[in-house]
Amino acid sequence: MTSHQFYLDELARLVQGELIGQSDLVLVGLSSLEQAQSQHISFVNGEKYLQEARASHAGALIVTATLKNQLNNHHNFIVVDNPYLAFAILTHHFEDKVLKRGIEATAQIADSAIIADNAYIGHYVVIGENCVVGEDTVIQSHVQLDNHVEIGKACFIDSHVTITGKAKIANRVRVHANTVIGGEGFGFAPYQGKWNRIVQLGSVQIGNDVRIGSNCSIDRGALDDTILKNGVIIDNLVQIAHNVVIGENTAIAAKCGIAGSTVIGKNCILAGGVGVVGHINIADNVTITGMSMVTKTISVAGSYSSGTGQFESNHWKRTVVRLRQLADVPLTKIVKQLDHMQAQIEHLESTLKSRK
Amino acid sequence: MTSHQFYLDELARLVQGELIGQSDLVLVGLSSLEQAQSQHISFVNGEKYLQEARASHAGALIVTATLKNQLNNHHNFIVVDNPYLAFAILTHHFEDKVLKRGIEATAQIADSAIIADNAYIGHYVVIGENCVVGEDTVIQSHVQLDNHVEIGKACFIDSHVTITGKAKIANRVRVHANTVIGGEGFGFAPYQGKWNRIVQLGSVQIGNDVRIGSNCSIDRGALDDTILKNGVIIDNLVQIAHNVVIGENTAIAAKCGIAGSTVIGKNCILAGGVGVVGHINIADNVTITGMSMVTKTISVAGSYSSGTGQFESNHWKRTVVRLRQLADVPLTKIVKQLDHMQAQIEHLESTLKSRK
Amino acid sequence: MTSHQFYLDELARLVQGELIGQSDLVLVGLSSLEQAQSQHISFVNGEKYLQEARASHAGALIVTATLKNQLNNHHNFIVVDNPYLAFAILTHHFEDKVLKRGIEATAQIADSAIIADNAYIGHYVVIGENCVVGEDTVIQSHVQLDNHVEIGKACFIDSHVTITGKAKIANRVRVHANTVIGGEGFGFAPYQGKWNRIVQLGSVQIGNDVRIGSNCSIDRGALDDTILKNGVIIDNLVQIAHNVVIGENTAIAAKCGIAGSTVIGKNCILAGGVGVVGHINIADNVTITGMSMVTKTISVAGSYSSGTGQFESNHWKRTVVRLRQLADVPLTKIVKQLDHMQAQIEHLESTLKSRK
Repeated sequence: MTSHQFYLDELARLVQGELIGQSDLVLVGLSSLEQAQSQHISFVNGEKYLQEARASHAGALIVTATLKNQLNNHHNFIVVDNPYLAFAILTHHFEDKVLKRGIEATAQIADSAIIADNAYIGHYVVIGENCVVGEDTVIQSHVQLDNHVEIGKACFIDSHVTITGKAKIANRVRVHANTVIGGEGFGFAPYQGKWNRIVQLGSVQIGNDVRIGSNCSIDRGALDDTILKNGVIIDNLVQIAHNVVIGENTAIAAKCGIAGSTVIGKNCILAGGVGVVGHINIADNVTITGMSMVTKTISVAGSYSSGTGQFESNHWKRTVVRLRQLADVPLTKIVKQLDHMQAQIEHLESTLKSRK
Repeated sequence: MTSHQFYLDELARLVQGELIGQSDLVLVGLSSLEQAQSQHISFVNGEKYLQEARASHAGALIVTATLKNQLNNHHNFIVVDNPYLAFAILTHHFEDKVLKRGIEATAQIADSAIIADNAYIGHYVVIGENCVVGEDTVIQSHVQLDNHVEIGKACFIDSHVTITGKAKIANRVRVHANTVIGGEGFGFAPYQGKWNRIVQLGSVQIGNDVRIGSNCSIDRGALDDTILKNGVIIDNLVQIAHNVVIGENTAIAAKCGIAGSTVIGKNCILAGGVGVVGHINIADNVTITGMSMVTKTISVAGSYSSGTGQFESNHWKRTVVRLRQLADVPLTKIVKQLDHMQAQIEHLESTLKSRK
Repeated sequence: MTSHQFYLDELARLVQGELIGQSDLVLVGLSSLEQAQSQHISFVNGEKYLQEARASHAGALIVTATLKNQLNNHHNFIVVDNPYLAFAILTHHFEDKVLKRGIEATAQIADSAIIADNAYIGHYVVIGENCVVGEDTVIQSHVQLDNHVEIGKACFIDSHVTITGKAKIANRVRVHANTVIGGEGFGFAPYQGKWNRIVQLGSVQIGNDVRIGSNCSIDRGALDDTILKNGVIIDNLVQIAHNVVIGENTAIAAKCGIAGSTVIGKNCILAGGVGVVGHINIADNVTITGMSMVTKTISVAGSYSSGTGQFESNHWKRTVVRLRQLADVPLTKIVKQLDHMQAQIEHLESTLKSRK
């Protein structure tokens, strides 16, 4: 809920929907069906929410025409083809945006940095040599932009973000709190039992409309750059190693990790906790289900899995006992052998019968 | 070890234990049995530590009556029913607490924020509009409280924590360094091949006595709030997605991730690295063992698993070969077929025997 | 790529390699074979890169003698035994080092802290009572060193790092951004349905040449210390719980988690996403493959696994159906029974044959 305020017909216009009911109904918040009060608008995301919708105290509902006809106890609607999308659009109008502009007196900005006039630079932000911050970009408190970092227009960088490794960030990028972009990749040459650090000299390129959650680590490349293309969305606590390339509009859920130099295609979805090994390729339009490990190149679009859902623990323990035996059990041979033995038995039976 | 100093009889009183030995023995630290010196007190956590206890140089031991009778070479004891609990209590007396009060001159605090007189606000803390910080709460350096964040009494918020999304935090809550509370949930409406951001308008509610480790991400809700109830304890690097609800006294170990809108009951334990999918329910008193994935609602209290312990790698490789065959092996049918064939063979044998 | 500049013979001398070609060739950057231009030097990491090397526009190549003989279209070489190591060495010469020294005016440093004259303390750094920072150590902006933290010589501590719990860090240690060292371990004594916090009184000891990535959590010990020995390297988003001990030169990849009191030997390698339970030991020279869970002590050097690579999702679903049956399938008994039945069948066949 927020303190914004709209008439129902304003909201209908914002989502290009059909208004049904009281056009000057005042609405002060978007709400879930369950929590909504009379001054709130809610949305009905399909037939399975009809019962909840009927019971809702929402003042107005965003619905499809079909849903509307099943909600006779409500009187105020915005009718659209895709209520979820309409809801997504309206959230932007109820957002508490950061409206501040200018540079807080406590920010430390190198003389060579270029900050657009209508950017906002928060308290205790530190901006290094030759950095660039574009128009309408908001940088919250305590952010550190190391030398040569460039950030485009209309970006939002939340508190405690560290951007280093000369990263270049395009427009309308959102980076949530405490994320690190451009940190040094994990590169070491083993020699005589020790790890010799390979200084990482590549950078990070982040395209337009990319979204990165909180507490993520996106490392700079070793020589070439780590690249997130336009429209990539990333949840919290995600690791993107050096020289990874992620294709347009790919979505990566929380706690995934992508190892070095792996290339992921466009429009992929990685569910939570997925791990991908280094130096492989994943095709466009691939979905990886939760907590799977990807160890080999995937050349064909489709869905891939390896994470196992829960068992009752005693069942699982007995399963693992069998798993430990499994390597020495010639499964396919057993199936063939059974068929062969069955045939032998039947032959014996018919022989015996014929000799009666 | 710390620089605090107590007489043995003071410590006995603090844990309501029976003092045996020298009441004015001076003790300057709690220590492990192995590292303890004569000015330290240690605890014996059961029979299996008896040998270590006998060899310890600790000046005094916290024990049960039964354990005491088996430690004849020691002379100074505090006898209690539960030495581990007594030890837990004493750690609070050896703690180096932050005793500072007041507001450091470098903190940036909005005029509309209300800070209790005996709170501590560290260097470079930034506190936004309409925030509240309660009595005896300690906020370490560089913390960012975004607008409308409220924190109760006697809380401890460590450095570089970001609290945003209008989060409301109750009393005696501890949040360790670099954690993000109230960051935007991962909500996007797919439309025409792109991800349309759903601005997250819900908040976060954190109950009394909650403990959150370092580098965690606790997202604000989409419309309703994300809720951690009283007594929840959470380790490091944990992801709590939008609209998750976690019941009282549930413990979540490091590196777990809970996806959106999942509701977890009271008194549950999630071991390290567990992943839970979104939109499910977990009953009270459920334990999930390490690195399991929970993909379906759990309605019955008990223990659930799916993570597999280590195999020697060649054994594991051969196991995975079999796993890749397993789908096409009709396991239960094989067991039945074997029984059937065995019966057929025995019938054949008896037929043959009868014809001898 | 960087703006540094060397003659080819300078670079050859730095890696003790043999110069072939134009000694005064000016090189301004290290580059990948693919991206290199004529003013760049690249390296050829084995036969499999020969084709890429031939097509490269690099002005000079680091190669072995054998590789050199297969690259007739190139004219400028540095010939060494180990091109990857030579490359690692040269990265240090193309690094943009932080050359600043001294203390920024905005840093807050307790009077009792001791800062070496040629250390660098960045903007908004906060350093507590009795801290020590050694010579040539660089501490980037917004770092928090809590009371009694000691850091040795020539360390690099990146922005937003929190070091607390009286941690002691030796020389040439690198800690990347937003990592937390010395946070409170996850220790609670359960009593009457609640979790009683055990204040953590131990510390953290970090040896020489240790490297810790970004967004890591390294907790202080409960009573004794958490210890990372010399030469340990750790990637991003790694959890090291209280009282863990990690042996020399062990490498831990991103997203691993090590639970409390576990002791890991020397020269081990933990691939990405590995979880290790608490209170176990892992011998020297052990490798754990990606996303495995280690649940029991490993006494013998070697490679261990349990993470499963991806299956096509429908194949995986059918596999999990079988996995859920597996506990009740007596695998080894089946194999024996099959052999026994085969023998019975053959006996029947020979009996029948003999009676023809």
